[in-house]
Amino acid sequence: MFNNASVQPATTGKGHLYGISTGPGDPELLTLKAVRLLENCPVVAYFCKRSGRGRARTSCEAHISPQHEELPMVYPVTNEIPHDSREYRQQIEDFFEESAQAVARHLDAGRSVAVLNEGDAFFYGSFMHIFLRLKDRYESTVVPGVGAMMAGGALLPHPLMMRDDQLRVIPGTMGEKALRASIDPERATVIMKVGTNLPLLRGIASDMGILERAWYVEKASMPEEQVMPLAEAPEGKAPYFSMILIPGPGVRV
Amino acid sequence: MFNNASVQPATTGKGHLYGISTGPGDPELLTLKAVRLLENCPVVAYFCKRSGRGRARTSCEAHISPQHEELPMVYPVTNEIPHDSREYRQQIEDFFEESAQAVARHLDAGRSVAVLNEGDAFFYGSFMHIFLRLKDRYESTVVPGVGAMMAGGALLPHPLMMRDDQLRVIPGTMGEKALRASIDPERATVIMKVGTNLPLLRGIASDMGILERAWYVEKASMPEEQVMPLAEAPEGKAPYFSMILIPGPGVRV
Repeated sequence: MFNNASVQPATTGKGHLYGISTGPGDPELLTLKAVRLLENCPVVAYFCKRSGRGRARTSCEAHISPQHEELPMVYPVTNEIPHDSREYRQQIEDFFEESAQAVARHLDAGRSVAVLNEGDAFFYGSFMHIFLRLKDRYESTVVPGVGAMMAGGALLPHPLMMRDDQLRVIPGTMGEKALRASIDPERATVIMKVGTNLPLLRGIASDMGILERAWYVEKASMPEEQVMPLAEAPEGKAPYFSMILIPGPGVRV
Repeated sequence: MFNNASVQPATTGKGHLYGISTGPGDPELLTLKAVRLLENCPVVAYFCKRSGRGRARTSCEAHISPQHEELPMVYPVTNEIPHDSREYRQQIEDFFEESAQAVARHLDAGRSVAVLNEGDAFFYGSFMHIFLRLKDRYESTVVPGVGAMMAGGALLPHPLMMRDDQLRVIPGTMGEKALRASIDPERATVIMKVGTNLPLLRGIASDMGILERAWYVEKASMPEEQVMPLAEAPEGKAPYFSMILIPGPGVRV
């Protein structure tokens, strides 16, 4: 099963670092390339919480065998410490550094490593924390994937982007003032990381006259997926990985 | 090979309309879902020019068999008539209408149709012209895919989007004044449809002080792919499907 010849550079004797985008959650939204490389890499690494193996690993379940060496990289903290505290930043930086070193030990021993990444690896992906630390020392390849934004868009009754539409992608976490300054009714807009800001975002969309164009999407492509007009979204907070999608303003018939 | 039961709604007796995102060009960047549905739909439709079958069809070559009925939808004009002329718009609207009717004839006869779409179907995709005309009459599913933007991003030495970056996606065709108003050095930016506007865009990037952050990408994921700093991009015009990618401004180490 492990055809290292196809995933390992002949030049250095070291392993090759792969950033594998695993898509939005549906295991069928893996690409053929992600599957091939994953099946051929002897080591599979992924970020996860102490409570589980994470969505990226779950999406790849069918392609990971007992012959793989798994390298779970378990976040030391999640919500126990405020994310803007010095203590959190220090712990998380130390954790990324140790994770990169653990990956590097395999690469130094000539074993290629597939680092799994939910969604697309370079679109807010966690792989960057490994990549930026190792890219100058090892050969690496990033395999692009289906972003959560595309999975959410596929559920709408109108295209997200058509003709000359412009798009803005905005993290929902950036505070009311910045949100109001960044949303433009004349653009298509995707708001990621909605979470606890759902009520705020609905209020802003209403104030700006775009509520009727806005859609709420939760867990796109997974069995528990939800899609509905933002006006009908549940009261209260939403899961962190929920999205608001506002297709462009042009004619859509 | 054709397991229509899995791709056809039992309720109506009509075929199911699939918008299949085929990704940026590399046949390995098809998703498992795209391959399964494509192999199981008796009819495969795709837009193309008179001169060839198009990139979407080419990406799917390995999964289309002689048992498939192919429905090429051949653009009546390409660059013979100005795209902003009334004559062009009328011809192209008539063409989309006829194409939708050709797809509908298969659906009415109970045959599910996979309409292929380069990149992601709802991200400037041509599938929308079929979808918007037929979605109220037939059951339909859009299969999201790897967008050209993600394929381009994967080639960069830095992540396109990290932490709290915001992104703007802009068509390069919209004229100098609108381009200058839409590009914000504080945001990550992707400029699609670069084409003949490459020299203009390089000038704007230079004026705005973001030339050293900007990358030029051509035919991402294909054998002839090109990636280089925008400052080093060739003089003159670029292919229509080239892109400029400007990662967010934050620290990238």
